[in-house]
Amino acid sequence: MRVVPWVLATSLLAAGTLQAAPRATAIPDKAVAAATQLREHALASNLGYEITASLTTEVGPRLAGSEADARAVKWAEAKFKALGYDKVWLEEVRFPKWERRSEHASVVGTNAQPLALIALGGSPAGTVEAEVVRFADLAALEAAPAGSLVGKIAFIDHRMERARDGAGYGMGSKVRSRGPSAAIRAGAAAYLMRSAGTDSHRNPHTGITRFDAGLTPVPSAALATPDADQLTRLLALGPVRVRMALDCGWNGEAVSHNVVGEIRGKSKPQEVVLIGGHLDSWDPGTGAIDDGAGVGLTMAAGALIGQMRQRPARTIRVVAFANEEQGLYGGKAYAATHVNDIRKHQLAAESDFGAGRIYAFRSGAPEYAQGAVKQIAEVLAPLGIAHTPGEGGPGPDISPFAERGMAWASLRQDGTDYFDYHHTPDDTLDKIDPRALAQNVAAYAVFAYLAASADGDFGSDLKAVKPPQE
Amino acid sequence: MRVVPWVLATSLLAAGTLQAAPRATAIPDKAVAAATQLREHALASNLGYEITASLTTEVGPRLAGSEADARAVKWAEAKFKALGYDKVWLEEVRFPKWERRSEHASVVGTNAQPLALIALGGSPAGTVEAEVVRFADLAALEAAPAGSLVGKIAFIDHRMERARDGAGYGMGSKVRSRGPSAAIRAGAAAYLMRSAGTDSHRNPHTGITRFDAGLTPVPSAALATPDADQLTRLLALGPVRVRMALDCGWNGEAVSHNVVGEIRGKSKPQEVVLIGGHLDSWDPGTGAIDDGAGVGLTMAAGALIGQMRQRPARTIRVVAFANEEQGLYGGKAYAATHVNDIRKHQLAAESDFGAGRIYAFRSGAPEYAQGAVKQIAEVLAPLGIAHTPGEGGPGPDISPFAERGMAWASLRQDGTDYFDYHHTPDDTLDKIDPRALAQNVAAYAVFAYLAASADGDFGSDLKAVKPPQE
Repeated sequence: MRVVPWVLATSLLAAGTLQAAPRATAIPDKAVAAATQLREHALASNLGYEITASLTTEVGPRLAGSEADARAVKWAEAKFKALGYDKVWLEEVRFPKWERRSEHASVVGTNAQPLALIALGGSPAGTVEAEVVRFADLAALEAAPAGSLVGKIAFIDHRMERARDGAGYGMGSKVRSRGPSAAIRAGAAAYLMRSAGTDSHRNPHTGITRFDAGLTPVPSAALATPDADQLTRLLALGPVRVRMALDCGWNGEAVSHNVVGEIRGKSKPQEVVLIGGHLDSWDPGTGAIDDGAGVGLTMAAGALIGQMRQRPARTIRVVAFANEEQGLYGGKAYAATHVNDIRKHQLAAESDFGAGRIYAFRSGAPEYAQGAVKQIAEVLAPLGIAHTPGEGGPGPDISPFAERGMAWASLRQDGTDYFDYHHTPDDTLDKIDPRALAQNVAAYAVFAYLAASADGDFGSDLKAVKPPQE
Repeated sequence: MRVVPWVLATSLLAAGTLQAAPRATAIPDKAVAAATQLREHALASNLGYEITASLTTEVGPRLAGSEADARAVKWAEAKFKALGYDKVWLEEVRFPKWERRSEHASVVGTNAQPLALIALGGSPAGTVEAEVVRFADLAALEAAPAGSLVGKIAFIDHRMERARDGAGYGMGSKVRSRGPSAAIRAGAAAYLMRSAGTDSHRNPHTGITRFDAGLTPVPSAALATPDADQLTRLLALGPVRVRMALDCGWNGEAVSHNVVGEIRGKSKPQEVVLIGGHLDSWDPGTGAIDDGAGVGLTMAAGALIGQMRQRPARTIRVVAFANEEQGLYGGKAYAATHVNDIRKHQLAAESDFGAGRIYAFRSGAPEYAQGAVKQIAEVLAPLGIAHTPGEGGPGPDISPFAERGMAWASLRQDGTDYFDYHHTPDDTLDKIDPRALAQNVAAYAVFAYLAASADGDFGSDLKAVKPPQE
C-alpha cells in the first residue's frame, strides 16, 4: 500500500456532476434482497481466508519481477480457474527490476553492536562507515545546509503515529520517499530512517524510495524501531559511527502481469464492476496483509457471486494487479490498456489496507448516483459499516484510472494495527483474523453485486486530465 | 533464564529443620520502619531502569565469552563503583566458548521461500538439504524408531503455552534440550523446532541445547513461530524439502567473570545477603529482560540501601553472574568458590525472569525463620506481593549454592509476556515498563534490607549432597 494523492481525483469527479443530469441511478429491490442473502452467505464462508492462505503459503514473498512473482501470476491464473471464473487472462506489465541481496549494519567502536535494518526499495548498493547525524523530522533534514553532511550518515528519527485510518503514514511515507534526496542535497553519504511503522519489534519496514532527478543515489535504509531508539540513546552519549552495507539495486527490466478473472454478467456482460488487490508483495514477509488479503477477499467475493443462482446484470471483474509496491505499475498499465473502455467500468473498488474490518463506505460517484450508493450502504450497514460521504478515496491501483474518470468507491478498513506489520518480515498469515476477513468478503460481494445490478451508472467518463503526479 | 530442578533443593532445606531448634529469627521494629521508607523511596526512583538502559545500550548483546561479554564485565565493575558500592571485585569463570556466525534456511522446490530460524546454542555448523518430517511433540520424536529418519530433518512443532509463572517453558525448554538427541537417535541429519516462545513474530528464540554422550551432534535450530506455522501448512500439501545452513560452533575456552559489589553492613559485615542477576545474554537481542533487568534492579536495590542513613547489620552483596545462559557457569563457580562460607550467606534471591511486576514471595528457610519471612512479606504486601509458601524456587544462578544448603527466597515476577521476547532479537529495552521495574527494585531493596537486619538466621548450612544434576 502506498499513498497517492486523492484530492485531484475527488475534485475531478465532483466536477463531473456539472456536465449532465442523467436519470437517477437505482438498484432493483430484487437485487437488494439477493445481496442481503449473499452477505450472510459470505459472512459464514471461509473462502477469502483460504485463498489468502493458499497464496501466502504456496508462493510466499513475491517481490515484483522475482521468480516468485512469476509463480504468483501462475497461481492467480490457476486459482481464478479453480474458483469457476468464466474468463481468465493476463495483461503484461513491464517495469525496472529491483533486487535485494543482503543488508547489514552495526555500531562500531566502544559500543559496538549490530543494528536491525532493511534497505529501502530503489536503494543502490554500497558500504558506508560514518558518523551519524540525527534529525527529529523530515523538515529538519530538509533545512540542513548543502554540504553540511559531507561524510556523514543522515538519520531521521520521525516516530509514526498509530491511527485507524493510517493517517500517520502520510508523513511516514514522506520520510521514506523524500528523506534520501534531502540527505543527498546536504551532502550525506548514506541515509537512515526510523521505520515507518507503529510497532516496537526488531522487524524493520521497507518500502519504495526515490531519488530526485540529478542527484546521485546513496545507500538508504530503515532501522527497526527498537534500533532507532537504541541509536538515539547512543547519540545522547556522544558521537556514534555506524557501518552499513547494502547489497541491492536495479537490474534491468522485468515483465509481470495483471491477472484478471471475470464472472460474466447476465444482461450487460460488456460492462464491469471492478474489484481487486495487488499480487506483488515486499520480500521480507509473505505479503498476507499487503496485499494477499486484498487479492483473496476480492477473488472470494467474485467467486461467491459466481455461485449465485441470480447473476447480476453486469460482469464482476477481479484484478490481481502487478507491482503496486514500486510505483503502481499494474494500475497504470491497466488504465492505459482500458482507457477507451472507461465508460464500461460501472464502478471500482480496491482492497489494499490489510485485513481489518471495514468500518466505512463511500463513493465518489456524482449526485445522480448517490441514491444507489445509499442503497448499497444500507445493505452494508449490518456489517458495522457506516456511510461516510466525504471521507476516503479509491485504492492505489485503481487510482490512475480513477484520475482519468472511472467511478470509484471506498470500503475503508480498520488499519489500527496495519503499520505494525506493513512491509516487514512480520506480514504473515497469522496476523489475519479469519472472521474479519469474512466481513470484508461480505462487504465486497454486496458492493459488487449491487453496483453490477443497478439501473443507471455511477458516472465513469473520460476526463482530459494531466497525468497523475507522484 | 533456564529451568533447573527445585525439588531437590526444597526437600534438602526442609530436612534442615530437623537438625536443630534455634531461637526464632525476627526482624527489629526499627528495621521494619526503615524498610517501609526504603520501599516508598525505591518506588519513586528510576535508578533500576537507568542501570538497565546503560547496560543494554552501551554494551548491547553480550554472548558469554564474546568481546561484548568482556565489555559487560568492565561495565559492571565501573557501574558498581559509580553507584557507591563499598567493595567491588571480579571472580574468574571459565567455560567452553560457543560462537554464532550465520544461519539461513529456505524451503526449496515449487514453494521456494526463506524461513526465519536461529541456531540453538551448542549446535554445530553444517548445511543440510533434506525432507522435513514433522512431530507434534517431543514424545512423538522420542518414539521414532532408530534409523527411521535417516537423511531427513526432524521437526518438532510443539506450541508453548502462555502462563504467568512461565510453566509452559518446562516443556518448551525440554523440546530444545532433548529434541536434538532424540532426532539423532532416529538417524536425522538435522533438527528443527518451533521456537519455545509465546509470540507470533518472525523473531525466532535461541537457547542452549545439548547432545547426549556418544551421539554425533547435528545442526539444530528453532524456527520463528510464523515459520513453524508456514512449514506445517506446506507439509499438509505434500513433502517439503528444506535447506538449512548454520555456521556456528564451539571454539576453545573463554574466560569471563562474576562481578561482585558490596554495601558493607554496620555490625555484621562478614555476613551477607546475596541478590543478583546474570550479566551475559543471548546474542540476538540486547538482553534487556534476560537479564539486564535482573542486574539493573538488584544493583539499584543495593545502591539505594547504601544511600540510607541507617545501614543494615549485614552486608548486601550484589552479584552479576557470568554465563548463566549456557549452563549456570557463573552460579556454579560462585558456589565452588564460597562453599566454605555458606553459613555467612544469610539469605539469597536472584532475579532472572524479566521485568514484570513481582506478585508473590516465599522463602525456603526453615520453620524457625518463617516468622521473619512473614515480617518481610508484610512490608512487601503493599507492592501487590502475596506471601505464597510452597510456590517458587531460587533463581538459576543461586541454585547450585542453594542445593548445597544456602538459604534462599523467591520473588516471583509476572512472566505472562516474558516468552514473547525471551532469547530473541526482540529482547530490547522498550519491552520494559519503568514503573514495573521500580516495583521490583522496591521489593528487592525491602527484602535485602530486612533479611540483613534480622536477629537470627535463615538456615544456611552445608549439606552433604550429590552434585546438582542437569
